[in-house]
Amino acid sequence: MIIDIHGHYTTAPSQLQAFRDAQLAALADGARPAPALAAISDDAVRESVRDHQLKVLRERGGDLMLFSPKASGMEHHVPDAAIARVWAAASNDLVHRVTRLFPEHFAGVCQLPQVPGGPLDDSVAELRRCVSDLGFVGCNLNPDPSGGHWTSPPLTDPYWYPLYEAMTELDVPAMIHVSTSCNPSFHTLGAHYLNADTSVFMQLMQGDLFGRFPSLRLVIPHGGGAVPYHWGRYRGLAMRAGRPGPAEHLLGNVFFDTCVYHQPGIDLLHQVIGTENVLFASEMLGAVRGADPDTGVGWDDTKAYVDRAGLTPEQRHQVFEGNARRVYPLLDARLTSEGR
Amino acid sequence: MIIDIHGHYTTAPSQLQAFRDAQLAALADGARPAPALAAISDDAVRESVRDHQLKVLRERGGDLMLFSPKASGMEHHVPDAAIARVWAAASNDLVHRVTRLFPEHFAGVCQLPQVPGGPLDDSVAELRRCVSDLGFVGCNLNPDPSGGHWTSPPLTDPYWYPLYEAMTELDVPAMIHVSTSCNPSFHTLGAHYLNADTSVFMQLMQGDLFGRFPSLRLVIPHGGGAVPYHWGRYRGLAMRAGRPGPAEHLLGNVFFDTCVYHQPGIDLLHQVIGTENVLFASEMLGAVRGADPDTGVGWDDTKAYVDRAGLTPEQRHQVFEGNARRVYPLLDARLTSEGR
Repeated sequence: MIIDIHGHYTTAPSQLQAFRDAQLAALADGARPAPALAAISDDAVRESVRDHQLKVLRERGGDLMLFSPKASGMEHHVPDAAIARVWAAASNDLVHRVTRLFPEHFAGVCQLPQVPGGPLDDSVAELRRCVSDLGFVGCNLNPDPSGGHWTSPPLTDPYWYPLYEAMTELDVPAMIHVSTSCNPSFHTLGAHYLNADTSVFMQLMQGDLFGRFPSLRLVIPHGGGAVPYHWGRYRGLAMRAGRPGPAEHLLGNVFFDTCVYHQPGIDLLHQVIGTENVLFASEMLGAVRGADPDTGVGWDDTKAYVDRAGLTPEQRHQVFEGNARRVYPLLDARLTSEGR
Repeated sequence: MIIDIHGHYTTAPSQLQAFRDAQLAALADGARPAPALAAISDDAVRESVRDHQLKVLRERGGDLMLFSPKASGMEHHVPDAAIARVWAAASNDLVHRVTRLFPEHFAGVCQLPQVPGGPLDDSVAELRRCVSDLGFVGCNLNPDPSGGHWTSPPLTDPYWYPLYEAMTELDVPAMIHVSTSCNPSFHTLGAHYLNADTSVFMQLMQGDLFGRFPSLRLVIPHGGGAVPYHWGRYRGLAMRAGRPGPAEHLLGNVFFDTCVYHQPGIDLLHQVIGTENVLFASEMLGAVRGADPDTGVGWDDTKAYVDRAGLTPEQRHQVFEGNARRVYPLLDARLTSEGR
């Protein structure tokens, strides 16, 4: 089985964005009534993925995708907690409908209703709802809800512990994923996403989060930002600081995905990090669409790169399936119960 | 000849830091008189590099290092313009003394007296002084003088044009280099430096800076941050935006150094970017000191990695010397006049 652990609902029916627009308009103009999400038929939900993520997943030989709301659409920088709660719930509910309509091919990962500097109670509650009531298997955690101003404490700070406690209890991992950038210095897709991956890895190196939460698991997407390319730098920085090396310190709990859109990057990722900590993912129909004119390979067709990375059959199994089932045990339990 | 284009004066005599401390104390306590830099003998300057950068440079087979004040010590986040002017001048003057004492082995690159949001007049003046009076061949440009809050406009903004005009007139390049991080989310060496490299490359992709300044040259250090590892992502983002690809758009004006501290990273850099745009550098005695216990190779002994990158003699010449002489024409002119 081939599991793509990183897909976003970038093709949701237009009612969802209309609802968001109305929500923000109501926020700007306190007099308006709170909007409601217009009805979306099952057919519309089906069509929104059947001709997009599901089609491409199947064409490329994939079986199942972990599916979450559009990352740039989370917009945690909007500071109103009630707005964030309703927006996350609506977005997650729509993902849930996709997972119900195509249970063989999608499993849910939730958006959290974070706001800059706000308490995490709402996020914990939404995580519990999504996992316990909707059958989701993970969440996306935004280390910078401000959207590029980085006003929150590092992920090793006790501020985040309530969420880690719930994740540990529910046995679900988080993918570290920022949302849209409100800082003109950081292009959302070309800088902010990668910077967040890099920054969080270093935050984890500086702290001892997994000493306190030994079973907590975090997935750093986009191939780990700059980290694998600079792996020697991280090893040297750890040594200079008298700290354990990043492999010993972090790789029991931290995993990287394969959202790196060319062969040399994928090769380096596997060479440096090792296949035990790499999970297949494409973020397909996301940041980078279209195909490399030189090769004809879709930019986000990461399976094509992993196929050529020279992995043994055992390593392929790890990257395409085994690691995902280990990092997402609720997914594994479901698949096992289905005989998959 | 082997030219290392990225060295900082991390081993300056202690009087320099004492001066800085006094300067900041005077700033905090307006009643104090402005401090003066204590006398530093030529012997002390000689010793400060002879047993450090110069020794290691020569041991590794290097000939000449482009030398600038300590990057994390620039501290552009201190908002007082007069303090910044005096601090940059003192730091640059000390670098100048190194270049005078060891003219065969060091050439100067200057710190600019930037302050967050301030006009660039002082930076232009200091650049002119360093190049015209002190014989410096380049400068370090900080895209985020705030130190991790990223409050300045992108490097494509007209805010920066006065500096580019002076650089163009003087025919000197800038290395993009942030200073210490004041944001606890960003470790200075493990996140902020790399994030800046990544962010600036994407800023340049979004704009058309070299349409306006066709001879402007920028060096992105630390192997380009995350960029070469994600080269497919950048190609795809450009294509999706209907923009020219990053190679056509930027590689006439943008160069990467080799401060990547392990073999797979150096290999990827050369494979993806091509040797025409890669300049040898170590940032030695900088972020990452000591040696890899697995191989015995110093982390920042980037020559060892480049030596093993499978380059042809022509490519080696480009990376070790030719590109540096092309990007830093004032250095080339000086070397040529010396018959080197």
